[in-house]
Amino acid sequence: MSNLFDQSLKVANCGLDSFASNLHEAGGDVNSLSWQPPAYGDVQAGLELASLINHPLVEQANQRAFAQYLDAQPVLVDVTTAVESIPAMAERKLILHAGPPIAWENMCGPVKGAIVGAIFLEGWATSQEQAERLILDGTVALAPCHHYQAVGPMAGIISPSMPVFVVENRPTGRRAYTNMNEGLGKVLRFGANSPEVIERLRWMGEELAPALSAALHMFGEVELKPLIAQALHMGDEVHNRNAAATGLLVKRLIPAMLGSGLPLDEVRRAIAFILGNDHFFLNLSMAASKVMMDAAANVPFSSMVTVMARNGVEFGVRLSGTGNQWFTARANPVEGLFFPGYGVDDAAADLGDSAITETAGLGGFAMASSPAIVKFVGGTPTDAIAHSLRMRSITLGGNGAFTLPAMNFAPTAAGIDARKVVDQNILPVINTGIAHKQAGVGQIGAGITTAPMPCFIEAIRALAAQVREHTGAAS
Amino acid sequence: MSNLFDQSLKVANCGLDSFASNLHEAGGDVNSLSWQPPAYGDVQAGLELASLINHPLVEQANQRAFAQYLDAQPVLVDVTTAVESIPAMAERKLILHAGPPIAWENMCGPVKGAIVGAIFLEGWATSQEQAERLILDGTVALAPCHHYQAVGPMAGIISPSMPVFVVENRPTGRRAYTNMNEGLGKVLRFGANSPEVIERLRWMGEELAPALSAALHMFGEVELKPLIAQALHMGDEVHNRNAAATGLLVKRLIPAMLGSGLPLDEVRRAIAFILGNDHFFLNLSMAASKVMMDAAANVPFSSMVTVMARNGVEFGVRLSGTGNQWFTARANPVEGLFFPGYGVDDAAADLGDSAITETAGLGGFAMASSPAIVKFVGGTPTDAIAHSLRMRSITLGGNGAFTLPAMNFAPTAAGIDARKVVDQNILPVINTGIAHKQAGVGQIGAGITTAPMPCFIEAIRALAAQVREHTGAAS
Repeated sequence: MSNLFDQSLKVANCGLDSFASNLHEAGGDVNSLSWQPPAYGDVQAGLELASLINHPLVEQANQRAFAQYLDAQPVLVDVTTAVESIPAMAERKLILHAGPPIAWENMCGPVKGAIVGAIFLEGWATSQEQAERLILDGTVALAPCHHYQAVGPMAGIISPSMPVFVVENRPTGRRAYTNMNEGLGKVLRFGANSPEVIERLRWMGEELAPALSAALHMFGEVELKPLIAQALHMGDEVHNRNAAATGLLVKRLIPAMLGSGLPLDEVRRAIAFILGNDHFFLNLSMAASKVMMDAAANVPFSSMVTVMARNGVEFGVRLSGTGNQWFTARANPVEGLFFPGYGVDDAAADLGDSAITETAGLGGFAMASSPAIVKFVGGTPTDAIAHSLRMRSITLGGNGAFTLPAMNFAPTAAGIDARKVVDQNILPVINTGIAHKQAGVGQIGAGITTAPMPCFIEAIRALAAQVREHTGAAS
Repeated sequence: MSNLFDQSLKVANCGLDSFASNLHEAGGDVNSLSWQPPAYGDVQAGLELASLINHPLVEQANQRAFAQYLDAQPVLVDVTTAVESIPAMAERKLILHAGPPIAWENMCGPVKGAIVGAIFLEGWATSQEQAERLILDGTVALAPCHHYQAVGPMAGIISPSMPVFVVENRPTGRRAYTNMNEGLGKVLRFGANSPEVIERLRWMGEELAPALSAALHMFGEVELKPLIAQALHMGDEVHNRNAAATGLLVKRLIPAMLGSGLPLDEVRRAIAFILGNDHFFLNLSMAASKVMMDAAANVPFSSMVTVMARNGVEFGVRLSGTGNQWFTARANPVEGLFFPGYGVDDAAADLGDSAITETAGLGGFAMASSPAIVKFVGGTPTDAIAHSLRMRSITLGGNGAFTLPAMNFAPTAAGIDARKVVDQNILPVINTGIAHKQAGVGQIGAGITTAPMPCFIEAIRALAAQVREHTGAAS
């Protein structure tokens, strides 16, 4: 101890800068570290986290999960109806929604409106009251899309008769399903359920889906990974901006659609619909991300995040190591730009399964690829690069298949490590649309939000318990 | 003079840095200027240039020319045949080529091959020998596209029966014409003239052009300025990369084409052809640039460059103030990447009217918008930004209609001032394809080149003479 006072002082300061500056002024050799206690200072969580940092079980599991994610090859293989692809829908009246599980009475306006709309579409009820009764008496069951290998943007509603895209991970054969994008304005995914909305959904099943299906059978399967990679070089981040990706998809499918032998009028309407909606590719970007993340799922002890999803009230996260368990917390507010006439008081909470794109290293994580979008969500190209750079601190590595031109073609940061999120207090960034809190009003803005910290703390606790249990059992 | 030695020394050093460093070491207050004598040290040219720098006649003329360029609104208004739009073609057998004027015997391989191909297409001859005879005896006349308000990429051949796009500058009504892009591989613009090449050209006239014409009449005119602006935000610089712009054009025209009432088979072939060629928009980008530059042309005393074009041997430049006069010099070599199996010895000299895009502030001037292309032409995204930044030194201003995301949406540098080129020794940068020197082999690489200095020196001399003459006459 006495030695300490004989040596010249070398200080590393954590905490308030003023401690360091006093020492510096007194002539001390001091380095100020940019450090905060992990988990926003939650000591218990910090200790749980400490048990997982550099733990060989977790490190190995993450390596495996991340490699499986990198190896995934999402391919658009088919267009079917939901009931054809999701067997549970044949057994009972089932409607899927975005995000983690939530009871009907707790759901937000847009999700409720969209579920009622899906009940109308299915012909199970003709009035709001009838529809609600079917839900409350259990005739119609509700469940998260993610429970059935599915994803949907915003309300994320998928009901049995809806057409779905089928995306397959080539190396494993595992599939994911997603509904088709309805365009902007009054649409089901923002909670609208008026006759025009139902009419459009019906048309999508009757004409659009057969046209897409015919095109796909003519063209063959569409590899989505190189298509997304190319779109990232054309200003998309394939979450809030899908203009280039939609164009690249169309380029493949239109000649095939025209050669399908379907009546010209039907083909014309299908093509005009797709070309009129720059977001059309979003659902495919989500399904591709879903199979990439499913490839990484269920590796015991892995702290890699495999799902981030929102139901309009809660944000839910799944880790690879903890399988199907959800860790939920209230969704964070969205910072962004509102369309004229709307403000933060009109906004629903963050909503939709589309954060699966960020989970896969796209969307907000690939913001640097999309300088043109930052004006839309509020910000500058420099902010966009800063977002992409910051995500490196909480991820397992880079995905060389998805490169960012504005960062000298650096790979996008991918494979969120829940440990790093909690350790660094850096939250995953998410690009998102903003829905009006009332059903059916639609999109009222767009912006940037983050995944809430408590999800990750809960996830770390569960993983630490799993590791403890295993180590206890093994010793 | 004696005062000089009483004062403390303040030195501005031009030339070798070592002069400055000696003074600096001796305690002198010295600033080293990065300066070279203008015109690569050509004293006579430097004196001519000096007579134009800050000359009020030139300054006012440039302001006017630049404003007219900025005001231009290029709109795709029609599809016709060349002979319908260019009256001289009805009067005699006339074939247009890229670049400044050049005699048949001095032309390079690809241009000769393409001219012979056009003669086959027109049915004026059936053999190479017959075709050459028609040229040598003056039956078939050759002239630059630019002499007839036209532009064409590479060999740039336009013959009477070829379909042309008609682009109009809305405020003035002045039009420009361009042929249609044939795609890659064995194509006329690289000098190929085999039966398959002629067959394709024939099909373009018989089916593609009518389909485009019908679509245009259904859709209405296509405003090209906002389309180009959007493509710049999607990774195109609309010279060497036109993937996004082609997609944006197709998005407008395909639904119209499908509604035109033309037979489905014809429409199908036309759509597949356009969707299969990411360069399809290039010719429209060139015609749009041509009307923007024509808007700035013929303003007496203006040193603004209105044309840069290459015929495969010589590079030619026109200034606004000197009207239709060409200033030519041997084309500079292209630095770039060659396709496997080819090298610099196989390359034709820089070729084509496509440098009209750079003249309009696009192409190489907008390189920063297209980080994805720099790999194709050799280089990094940082190089791309450096090119766009450097062009600011030789231009009259920025074009707020064309913004560059990677430079925080800065306007592209536009309106090349020949005075600044000569004064700063900074040459306009041009993105370009590299053609094989033998007719018909096709594209063998892509890269970056520059406009040669002697063109600009000659242009400055002519403009100085014009100013001198005017001032002499006025005084």
